[in-house]
Amino acid sequence: MKIVLAQQNYHIGNFESNTQKILSAIADAKKQGADLIVFSELSVCGYPPRDFLEFTDFIDKCKDALDEIKLHTSEIGVLVGCPTVNPTKEGKDLFNSAYLLYNGAILDVVHKTLLPTYDVFDEYRYFEPCHQWHVMQFKGKKLAVTICEDIWNLGDNPLYRICPMDELMKYQPDVMINLSASPFDYTHDDDRKAIIKANVLKYKLPMFYCNAVGSQTEIVFDGGSLVFDREANLILEGKYFEEDMLCAELTNDNSFLETISLSFDKLPSEMLDPSEFNANLNTEKMYKALVLGIRDYFSKMGFTKAIVGSSGGIDSAVTIAIACDALGAENVFALMMPSQFSSTHSVDDAVQLSNNLGHLYEVIAIKPIFDVFLQQLKPLYQELPFNVAEENIQARSRGNLLMAVANKFNYVLLNTTNKSECATGYGTLYGDMAGGISVLGDVYKTQVYALAHCINRAHEIIPQHIIDKAPSAELKPDQKDSDSLPDYTILDAILYQYIELRKGPKEIIGKGYDVNLVNRILKLVNTSEYKRNQFCPIIRVSPKAFGVGRRVPIVGKYLS
Amino acid sequence: MKIVLAQQNYHIGNFESNTQKILSAIADAKKQGADLIVFSELSVCGYPPRDFLEFTDFIDKCKDALDEIKLHTSEIGVLVGCPTVNPTKEGKDLFNSAYLLYNGAILDVVHKTLLPTYDVFDEYRYFEPCHQWHVMQFKGKKLAVTICEDIWNLGDNPLYRICPMDELMKYQPDVMINLSASPFDYTHDDDRKAIIKANVLKYKLPMFYCNAVGSQTEIVFDGGSLVFDREANLILEGKYFEEDMLCAELTNDNSFLETISLSFDKLPSEMLDPSEFNANLNTEKMYKALVLGIRDYFSKMGFTKAIVGSSGGIDSAVTIAIACDALGAENVFALMMPSQFSSTHSVDDAVQLSNNLGHLYEVIAIKPIFDVFLQQLKPLYQELPFNVAEENIQARSRGNLLMAVANKFNYVLLNTTNKSECATGYGTLYGDMAGGISVLGDVYKTQVYALAHCINRAHEIIPQHIIDKAPSAELKPDQKDSDSLPDYTILDAILYQYIELRKGPKEIIGKGYDVNLVNRILKLVNTSEYKRNQFCPIIRVSPKAFGVGRRVPIVGKYLS
Repeated sequence: MKIVLAQQNYHIGNFESNTQKILSAIADAKKQGADLIVFSELSVCGYPPRDFLEFTDFIDKCKDALDEIKLHTSEIGVLVGCPTVNPTKEGKDLFNSAYLLYNGAILDVVHKTLLPTYDVFDEYRYFEPCHQWHVMQFKGKKLAVTICEDIWNLGDNPLYRICPMDELMKYQPDVMINLSASPFDYTHDDDRKAIIKANVLKYKLPMFYCNAVGSQTEIVFDGGSLVFDREANLILEGKYFEEDMLCAELTNDNSFLETISLSFDKLPSEMLDPSEFNANLNTEKMYKALVLGIRDYFSKMGFTKAIVGSSGGIDSAVTIAIACDALGAENVFALMMPSQFSSTHSVDDAVQLSNNLGHLYEVIAIKPIFDVFLQQLKPLYQELPFNVAEENIQARSRGNLLMAVANKFNYVLLNTTNKSECATGYGTLYGDMAGGISVLGDVYKTQVYALAHCINRAHEIIPQHIIDKAPSAELKPDQKDSDSLPDYTILDAILYQYIELRKGPKEIIGKGYDVNLVNRILKLVNTSEYKRNQFCPIIRVSPKAFGVGRRVPIVGKYLS
Repeated sequence: MKIVLAQQNYHIGNFESNTQKILSAIADAKKQGADLIVFSELSVCGYPPRDFLEFTDFIDKCKDALDEIKLHTSEIGVLVGCPTVNPTKEGKDLFNSAYLLYNGAILDVVHKTLLPTYDVFDEYRYFEPCHQWHVMQFKGKKLAVTICEDIWNLGDNPLYRICPMDELMKYQPDVMINLSASPFDYTHDDDRKAIIKANVLKYKLPMFYCNAVGSQTEIVFDGGSLVFDREANLILEGKYFEEDMLCAELTNDNSFLETISLSFDKLPSEMLDPSEFNANLNTEKMYKALVLGIRDYFSKMGFTKAIVGSSGGIDSAVTIAIACDALGAENVFALMMPSQFSSTHSVDDAVQLSNNLGHLYEVIAIKPIFDVFLQQLKPLYQELPFNVAEENIQARSRGNLLMAVANKFNYVLLNTTNKSECATGYGTLYGDMAGGISVLGDVYKTQVYALAHCINRAHEIIPQHIIDKAPSAELKPDQKDSDSLPDYTILDAILYQYIELRKGPKEIIGKGYDVNLVNRILKLVNTSEYKRNQFCPIIRVSPKAFGVGRRVPIVGKYLS
């Protein structure tokens, strides 16, 4: 049995384009003489459809798409993801399902059992879990078809009390097939490969694993679909951050998979050592995820051009470099907005960066704007001393200028805030926190430097002076980030313990960090929740990003 | 058995203040000679604690609070809500539990079975459902103790496959006790009373129902705790939007509840007709919910003073009036910021309102600021015609001024956007969409007028001219809302079908609305998701508010 995995980039709710993609892959697979083609989880509507699922109209459109696809299944089996209305009275209204279509009919359907409801996932909000299991019979093979999370319930701390593959093994399947929508984070690839391999080792069956690819607002699906033979040898691996199709032959005794050349990359003859892989390639993968995050945000929102506030600092430099890669330098516009407190090198460095990248830029001074604000506020401010209010007026005047240019010329503003700032609330709402999407909001400051080195690997794109100078907001005389924040290597280490690892103050202090510093930082994080609540979506690259995956009360009094 | 219900307002994560409140109620109940005191769901930490529950440190603090409360339970049973660590390997890490404390010990504990995971609720994100049931034995009575949603699985379309009270009935309980955190919306009160009564009618047991009160960022808990006898007569009803304590005597044959005077209001001798209740009192209740929403946001965040942009329009007028009620007129400051396009009456009307309410105000013209923005943008804008970009510059200059005053004088900016604007994206990000909390973001424009009439009921607070004039943003010459939006009565009716009732375009058009109008409005809603995503928390008064309870993709292509 020749099986194709179609790793595709869907647009949520865009049934026409999703269906076209699926039909095009089916046509290709037919040309290859495939018996079965497998798509990713909820492929007809794109994943995650979120509360669109609450509209009967949306579910009807999913069914229509399924009906359309069904018409193109002569001589080829199609396993495609689609929601199903729960026919029984009790329980949630929908199932998250995989349909087997063949010769114009629905041959079989199975529902997802394990519904991830943590971090960015909300599946139990919509779906009833599967309560009974069966294998799909197709062309003499018994297929154990599962959906994403269904194969993740192995290991020491299972989130669930059921293991769907254990249930399916009662029917002696020949092969495991998993339709997935598993997002990228810089730790998740290795986890994913390990859990799939663990399934193969436990059940001694070959595995066809089809993942989604493409960015959906903040969540980046990275592809990397996998085929393992039943001895747990990795037979095929899909491209990362790109669409791909894999094809493999399942032999009659299920013991061997003869790989078929389609459009997939050859697997390196020897797998890299995982730790080395991590050490060397994570920044590279993070970079690729950010490029895809920007590119898909723009293409799916129907935009082409980005504007970025260019300060001469490392965050805006890295953001602009990534934007040029994602959108083309011809679609990126940088606006330098020096204040009276800006150092002379700020504009020079920013201009040097723009020249290196070859994109347009403009310089608009904000002093005249700041001055007129102060003049209008004089009756209220009187002789009160300069403080953060005046800093914020400048930051918000920059935000206004950026949006004014964006609105006039149809740019989307890319936000340049990094994760360390986002965590500590070091930024001005409606000022430097403005933007359509945040490129670095899940990248700690120390990781921003790693990205800069990655960008400069072949030749200097980001001027060395930008990398070397001390970070500063330049909103008052001789300001440095280090006036208000601890050294970023210490700050990021503490934030990582709190944000990614969910350690409490005692545990973090137990690692040798200063008591007062830890308490101060955790308080900064928890008291700036109201700012993050109004922040734009952040392209997610870590296992715990701010935004939809981290939901804490704004009005609370914990560690604050 | 004398049972007290303690309806209290908790501060999430503020263990010290929550514990003090609980201990104080226990002391009061002891004075009344109560046998048992009942608190609301997750009372030790406040509800909803959201991702704070992912911190072991937070769970430890819950346990510490429970231990502290335990020490004050001599001669009185205390039923209090607290999370429990799941001792088994499988499943989620926590249970949502009710503890029975007595004479310094934990006498019993039960866990919640039905975990609401819809709208604003995310309980399956954190909690494992209860899988086995028992009644609590206390002073010769068998208590069927359930938590909130556990009693909501009656009716035609149950969300769950289990009914916890059916399980508990196997043990022949004497009484039902429910610890709840059930939020207000303008339809929910009637639902709640009906479902509780349906339980009493089904199980023929008396019911003690203790609800939380108080606003938690966007979610307003309205109290209204209830006691029914086993013939389904309503014996006691707690205050709405206020803390309260109810006390009732459960007799030996469980057939009759002798009510005890404590601090509760007397129930009206005859219940109002529900439909009449709706028609007459919903605006009043909505008003009270908004007052509590503002008051608790400020007190729990540690703020006292509000600033509001006062345009002379109905939205800002209603917001200011509610703010004065919530915080005191002495804590409200209005800033009028006329543009060159403002009508002469705008400032006059706003001043009249401020005089009526007796709060401070100031006028700052934005023309000089707008002019200098245009001057600085001249190299880019050149001779391009005036469009929405120039409108937004003015709105954002106002936002900057409001925040400048807020930052300098420690005000929190109250947002004045209404739900009709919020739905259609009729507003400027970082401009009139700025603010710490939105007062009217869940109130349609037509409902804003109803609130205005409610505010003016006794005497004119909002000048009649503000109510009578046509709504306008006044950002370009002779602008009216009706230039861009349909009449609000039609707009709101269509929005209600789509937002609250989740009807699709076909169903709405089927009600007789114009095809093009419906499609245009739904498209406006879906393409402005990116704006709402950066909007501040909205005080929730409807069954479907924008914000945490409505989660749709930003990057999508459904009805857009």
